[in-house]
Amino acid sequence: LDYQHVQVPFEITLWIMLASLAKIGFHLYNKLPSVVPESCLLIFVGLIMGGIIYGLNDRSPPVMDSDIFFLYLLPPIVLDAGYFMPSRPFFENMGTILLYAVVGTVWNVFGIGFSLYGICQVRAFRLQDVSLLHNLLFGSLIAAVDPVAVLAVFEEIHVNEKLHILVFGESLLNDAVTVVLYKLFRSFCEMPTIKSVDVFAGVGKFFVVGLGGVLVGLSFGLTAAFTTRFTKDIRVIEPLFVFLYSYLSYLTAEMFHLSGIVAIIACAMGMKRYVEANISLKSHTTVKYFMKMWSSVSDTLIFIFLGVSTIGENHEWNWPYICFTVIFCLVWRALGVLVLTFFVNRFHVNTITSKDQFIIAYGGLRGAICFSLVFLLPDFHRKKLFIAATTVVILFTVFVQGMTIRPLVDLLAVKRKRESAPTVGEQIHIRFLDHLLAGIEDISGHWGQYYWKDKLEYFNSKYLQKLLLREYDQPKSSIVLLYEKLERKHAIELAQAGQLGHGPAHPSLLNSNRTVLTDQKLEDTQNPDVLDNMQEILARNLYRIRRTGPAYSRHTLPGESEPGEHAKEILILRHQGL
Amino acid sequence: LDYQHVQVPFEITLWIMLASLAKIGFHLYNKLPSVVPESCLLIFVGLIMGGIIYGLNDRSPPVMDSDIFFLYLLPPIVLDAGYFMPSRPFFENMGTILLYAVVGTVWNVFGIGFSLYGICQVRAFRLQDVSLLHNLLFGSLIAAVDPVAVLAVFEEIHVNEKLHILVFGESLLNDAVTVVLYKLFRSFCEMPTIKSVDVFAGVGKFFVVGLGGVLVGLSFGLTAAFTTRFTKDIRVIEPLFVFLYSYLSYLTAEMFHLSGIVAIIACAMGMKRYVEANISLKSHTTVKYFMKMWSSVSDTLIFIFLGVSTIGENHEWNWPYICFTVIFCLVWRALGVLVLTFFVNRFHVNTITSKDQFIIAYGGLRGAICFSLVFLLPDFHRKKLFIAATTVVILFTVFVQGMTIRPLVDLLAVKRKRESAPTVGEQIHIRFLDHLLAGIEDISGHWGQYYWKDKLEYFNSKYLQKLLLREYDQPKSSIVLLYEKLERKHAIELAQAGQLGHGPAHPSLLNSNRTVLTDQKLEDTQNPDVLDNMQEILARNLYRIRRTGPAYSRHTLPGESEPGEHAKEILILRHQGL
Repeated sequence: LDYQHVQVPFEITLWIMLASLAKIGFHLYNKLPSVVPESCLLIFVGLIMGGIIYGLNDRSPPVMDSDIFFLYLLPPIVLDAGYFMPSRPFFENMGTILLYAVVGTVWNVFGIGFSLYGICQVRAFRLQDVSLLHNLLFGSLIAAVDPVAVLAVFEEIHVNEKLHILVFGESLLNDAVTVVLYKLFRSFCEMPTIKSVDVFAGVGKFFVVGLGGVLVGLSFGLTAAFTTRFTKDIRVIEPLFVFLYSYLSYLTAEMFHLSGIVAIIACAMGMKRYVEANISLKSHTTVKYFMKMWSSVSDTLIFIFLGVSTIGENHEWNWPYICFTVIFCLVWRALGVLVLTFFVNRFHVNTITSKDQFIIAYGGLRGAICFSLVFLLPDFHRKKLFIAATTVVILFTVFVQGMTIRPLVDLLAVKRKRESAPTVGEQIHIRFLDHLLAGIEDISGHWGQYYWKDKLEYFNSKYLQKLLLREYDQPKSSIVLLYEKLERKHAIELAQAGQLGHGPAHPSLLNSNRTVLTDQKLEDTQNPDVLDNMQEILARNLYRIRRTGPAYSRHTLPGESEPGEHAKEILILRHQGL
Repeated sequence: LDYQHVQVPFEITLWIMLASLAKIGFHLYNKLPSVVPESCLLIFVGLIMGGIIYGLNDRSPPVMDSDIFFLYLLPPIVLDAGYFMPSRPFFENMGTILLYAVVGTVWNVFGIGFSLYGICQVRAFRLQDVSLLHNLLFGSLIAAVDPVAVLAVFEEIHVNEKLHILVFGESLLNDAVTVVLYKLFRSFCEMPTIKSVDVFAGVGKFFVVGLGGVLVGLSFGLTAAFTTRFTKDIRVIEPLFVFLYSYLSYLTAEMFHLSGIVAIIACAMGMKRYVEANISLKSHTTVKYFMKMWSSVSDTLIFIFLGVSTIGENHEWNWPYICFTVIFCLVWRALGVLVLTFFVNRFHVNTITSKDQFIIAYGGLRGAICFSLVFLLPDFHRKKLFIAATTVVILFTVFVQGMTIRPLVDLLAVKRKRESAPTVGEQIHIRFLDHLLAGIEDISGHWGQYYWKDKLEYFNSKYLQKLLLREYDQPKSSIVLLYEKLERKHAIELAQAGQLGHGPAHPSLLNSNRTVLTDQKLEDTQNPDVLDNMQEILARNLYRIRRTGPAYSRHTLPGESEPGEHAKEILILRHQGL
């Protein structure tokens, strides 16, 4: 027996196996996952395993290594999240998401930090040795909503798309803020004196970390797309590039102390459409499937490890501090959401209802990121208190909030996700309105989201697609693709029902068919053409109007022009048109 | 900049990226891969990279770690080989393959070992300090044909199926022999005296290592099949189990010093048909695709590392020894193939032609396994000589033999692989003949391969399938499945050509269609039934005949009965039947 030799891969494989088997086990009893979220069950399994290890060895089981978490377990989940991110709602609500992620997180960090410092001043709690800086540092790690936990819970409750993207987008993008504040406070802890310069440097750093992450991610993403241009002869390694480049973007961002999560999301969103067009259908199935599989395993492992790491003697149970941490986390988040949403709703027609606000505030789950960060803290005498408080906050949010959010969503009758895919008619209308709004914005000189989206689309089709796509051709719109997919599905169904006419096999019969079916066939074969035409008419003509239209407003600064001027411009255009 | 933090995953990802990009690069120029095998090009890239590292650092570049090779790079390739192994030709030629793998390898080991010892006795070569045992140890590592190298070369030259499986099967199964002999001689080297007991123990060990590997592999394979029974609700982690269980079988076998290669092949072949039936189509695409991708990357990395590791100062260039090693490798293999094939041909109708024999002897490529084993040798003063000789043998076989084998195959007009898939008619005939032969063997009391195959099939459908398959139902035969697949493909082609009649959408037209198409449709819808019936008639009736038939011969030992008795038995049966 030579266990030493195979130990590392053997134990890794066994852990993954345990996680997968646990997942299967839960799903064997259909009742269980519909009541308790999977994340809770997994933590529970972890707690039991931790207890067994603790009981057998009589010492604390090994805690989840922060390096393993950040380098190996987190990237697959974030990649999956970024790759399957619904880009339309994400970009439509970008402003709100950023507000929640940046201002909301800063608000939470300072709110929790300062109020916990207030608690530390109470003599009876014997916490006077915890400085303000330490409290702020703790606040910076406990404030951030965790994407893994949010994803695990929100995937099961099916709230409407906008609500989902608000909570989930916030949890992803607040990484940049968390990274900056956490590292800032940690370096402050080690500095003898803090100058005001350092504080300003910290604010500047936020932009570097966030935008740097986006830049790193986009450049890797576009390189990935460019690489897949050349894989036509070796289809078999195509899926690899998607994973390699996104992982490299994450590692590179981490290496330069930028936000790895932001980088990998930018990479995934940037490469997606080009890669999809370049690689074969089977490769794409493999990419999608493997991404889902990998992220699901990572997710499972994280929750199990979370449970295992909870057991042990790493904790200092100062209950006042711990309880107030939980309360402050809830209160400051609720306040933050209320205040921020008040401002958001003033500038939007499609407002966020109070029910939605409640779910946003309540859905602020904490998870493994806090947990890994608290173990990365520099050693100081109250570290175990922070670990205990973090553990309790995570368990409270995942168990109490995670288990009650589904009944609450039912109770409040929060608007759910629509089950059916949008119809072809709806898609055409949405696209039509997009073009219309882009035209209106362009004519009126208003640089709104449709204007920028259209500019980006123009840049994309003019330069990027030519560079990145293998077979550059006016690409088929999603409508035509959907139509083709339905057609294929229909054909397969017919074949399975045995109703498919074997045309080519029986030429004589085929001819008689042909005469009967002529008119029907004409209709059928025209259908894609009709759609194509419709799409082309929309794309070209609307575009042409807008191309020829707004050349006038180029010299004035549209942002500064008054509403009266807009109307004037439109009148001038109209007169010229006539 | 914090490179230390991300170093390990970053460098691994970069190596894989380099390998993938190199692969793309070769395929951009279509001429290159058709002349030079990819393996040669990859070794060449490795040599250049090794040269650069050597030039920059002024010290030997790091050699490929044997642990990394055996634990991480080899398993994906062997898993891929086992999973996609054509089981029919493999089992049909099992005897010949085992003969080549066991007797042939032992013959090569002792042949090369003893003749090199002879060379060492020549004073002029100054090799008298290399003992017989060391020469045998060297022989045991240099004698084995390498599956990775064979696969890389034979995949490109498309020889006929039998020839391919003979060489490839040998290269896989000789692992058990190599493991035993290598470990035996290595332990002999460290023993003060060798008793004859140890030698016999070594012979016994061979069976333990080989059969143990098969047992470990089969048990993991069947567990994997059993696990996939329960994955219906979480399709997304299905592909994982295929990889996890096969890897565990490899690691477990290695842990008990059994043959990991044999184990993983047994596991893959054992689980394949059950897993395929249990998991969804998309999961299966992912499994196949990812397996191919992974093995292709591993393969690429191995050859690049082989090149990199060649550069450096690990070598002792004693040219007589090295040249004679190459010559003996060629000569003993050629002799072995000639002698063994002589015996094989005496007992087979379908003989191995002299052309095939030449290709079998010439296709005995050495590769990374030898290379890793030679670095695992215990330190002694002539280790560098062995490393040099191994390197030269590998480079000679991969470059000279690998590059000339394709022209030779063309020149000798070796029978090629048939391009087209077997038709439905052929498949039915093959199956029919199988049943017929099983019947004949059963009646005549001859326990041949058809007899055993049939028994296995009976056991499989009676017990294994019920235990391992989720929806156990008389499974559709491969013919019906093929038919359905063709039907689907045909439907998609029709849909893409726009010729598909939209039946359900136009009920009025559908009716008129129906009257016209009635007779054709009848034919179509009957087709699968006809095939099903045909298959059932074949399977049931032929089986029933055989079930009722041979109960008589149970008491006599069929192996010992003479030909005359066979005829008598058949006559008795015939009379009773009349």
